[in-house]
Amino acid sequence: MSTPHTLSFDALQQFIERSLASQGLPAADALKVSQLMAEADLQGSDGHGVIRLPQYIKRIRAGGINTNPHIRVVHERSAMAVVDGDNGMGHLVVSHAVDLAIQKASEAGVAWVSTRMSNHAGPASLYSRMPLQHNMLGLYFAVGNANHLPPWGGMDMLLSTNPISAGIPAGDEPPVVLDMATTVAAYGKVKVKAKRGEMMPPGWMIDRQGQPLLDPNKASDGFLLPIGEHKGYGLALIVGLLAGTLGGGAMGRDVVDFNADHVTVTNTGQAILVIDLAAFGDPAHFKGQVDALVRDLRSSEKLPGVERIWLPGEQSHEKRSRYAQSGIPVAPSLVQELNALAAEWGVAPLTSH
Amino acid sequence: MSTPHTLSFDALQQFIERSLASQGLPAADALKVSQLMAEADLQGSDGHGVIRLPQYIKRIRAGGINTNPHIRVVHERSAMAVVDGDNGMGHLVVSHAVDLAIQKASEAGVAWVSTRMSNHAGPASLYSRMPLQHNMLGLYFAVGNANHLPPWGGMDMLLSTNPISAGIPAGDEPPVVLDMATTVAAYGKVKVKAKRGEMMPPGWMIDRQGQPLLDPNKASDGFLLPIGEHKGYGLALIVGLLAGTLGGGAMGRDVVDFNADHVTVTNTGQAILVIDLAAFGDPAHFKGQVDALVRDLRSSEKLPGVERIWLPGEQSHEKRSRYAQSGIPVAPSLVQELNALAAEWGVAPLTSH
Repeated sequence: MSTPHTLSFDALQQFIERSLASQGLPAADALKVSQLMAEADLQGSDGHGVIRLPQYIKRIRAGGINTNPHIRVVHERSAMAVVDGDNGMGHLVVSHAVDLAIQKASEAGVAWVSTRMSNHAGPASLYSRMPLQHNMLGLYFAVGNANHLPPWGGMDMLLSTNPISAGIPAGDEPPVVLDMATTVAAYGKVKVKAKRGEMMPPGWMIDRQGQPLLDPNKASDGFLLPIGEHKGYGLALIVGLLAGTLGGGAMGRDVVDFNADHVTVTNTGQAILVIDLAAFGDPAHFKGQVDALVRDLRSSEKLPGVERIWLPGEQSHEKRSRYAQSGIPVAPSLVQELNALAAEWGVAPLTSH
Repeated sequence: MSTPHTLSFDALQQFIERSLASQGLPAADALKVSQLMAEADLQGSDGHGVIRLPQYIKRIRAGGINTNPHIRVVHERSAMAVVDGDNGMGHLVVSHAVDLAIQKASEAGVAWVSTRMSNHAGPASLYSRMPLQHNMLGLYFAVGNANHLPPWGGMDMLLSTNPISAGIPAGDEPPVVLDMATTVAAYGKVKVKAKRGEMMPPGWMIDRQGQPLLDPNKASDGFLLPIGEHKGYGLALIVGLLAGTLGGGAMGRDVVDFNADHVTVTNTGQAILVIDLAAFGDPAHFKGQVDALVRDLRSSEKLPGVERIWLPGEQSHEKRSRYAQSGIPVAPSLVQELNALAAEWGVAPLTSH
């Protein structure tokens, strides 16, 4: 059998599913997490998909994740809740929170649900997109799972890449889906560079002398840079306060570096805001307005040398269609690593079909 | 009488109040707007305070602002509302929206209020700060009042500086208050540079050839740059969709350039999200956590050459105290301009006491 370079969604999802089930996740949970992880790869979020499986399973085996969590609401009002994830897989905790927010928003018009005792849950846009099919929009905030960002002007890494994601429904156009770290590069992208043996461009990280750091294998000697200098620092801080501190999740010095520590409970916090378009008027009118705006932006006159103007989420949208048809590209070295682990976990290896 | 270089809050506020009243604003409205405008200068937001008075009054006199608006709720659920500002002064419309959001959040835990048919309302942080005294936090989004930002890679200015602001309560520390344009510089700062006869630093604006534009008097030949390149473009777009499109306010090609056009109704949209800390647990605990985080960040080891690490809003907080005591600095050229206009409006000039 030759090493596959592209994998079908089903092959990838089922491999993740059986791997997680082999580690004690209940069947329904293994299915749900595997669907979300494979969806991450399907949309090109390759720093947050199957590449994280070895790390998740290392943590599960070390006792750092609860495979049978009692996910429950600990604070609630009509337009908000705090969900305690009982240290379960983040994908399960956040899905639970988003479902609850959608349900509450359908009554209250708007709802905010925070998580605590959650874990890394993959790319933010998985969750901001969930309200779309309900004619709702989503705004998602998360505390990153390792601090690589100091305050602006400082060197103590007290902040993470704390992402913001928004999913806004359109009509005939793809939805507008923003998913951005508040740093120039997400740490997942640094890990992908290391895995590929590539250097980072200047501007992603600096070292303790304030000089550009280019070698992703030396990432632990430096820190990420925020977008817009002090502005990105401020955004990362606010996102962390909203996603972490507000709901009782870890923030600042309490954030556990889950790349280095596979045992300590991370107490990850996330937050989702869901807005029901129907509360604001006719959703079809809103979506028509988004379509018109998207088309205006896309057909803008271009700067010299620019081939195409993209909307946020449009490249992921294209990848979803393309990869669904022709397969999801996965680095051969990652497939080899996963298949070596599969043998260890006692599950069937990845195959291309 | 020598030209004053610093003014007391009261002198500034009363000058604005009598100027607005002279243009037909009801006494209570002139008072409220003047307090918020003077507060902008008090906290150092000098691009959004009294410097805007001539423009506001030009628009009022041209019939572009309704001095007797019927501000009303047009859509409502328990955790949301849309406020139609009837083309009144933005300060009045947004204050109304924030008051309503605070009231709703005290029940529902979280509330979102959008405005439409509003106008320029000054610095975003005026509004994100309002919930603080209620043990609530605020997130504010606005559509800027002139498009100076093209989509990333484009030249058609379809987006504005669309700011984000957050006000997060602390305990003994000053609140964490972020107020940032999604562009490297807000257009108000460009106007201040022009007024002061200073050049802009590279990175604020580019021209239609993609080259740095440094002369603020040539600002109309170029466009602002977003923070973090495509990320800031995405943020500006999302903020515009949330603050404008969602509530029925202008966005994209419908945004009126209120620097150039003093008559056309702007249909400005803003949005405030208010979160009641008490719904999430003990507000005192939250505020203690914020204090601890603020102190950790402030006492971080510093990069070579850095004197002090600032928290978002800390410099404005210091200015509030300093200017309240020793006066608000106002450029002599601006005082001269205002006093020439005061004669035209038939009101007493600015004095230093």
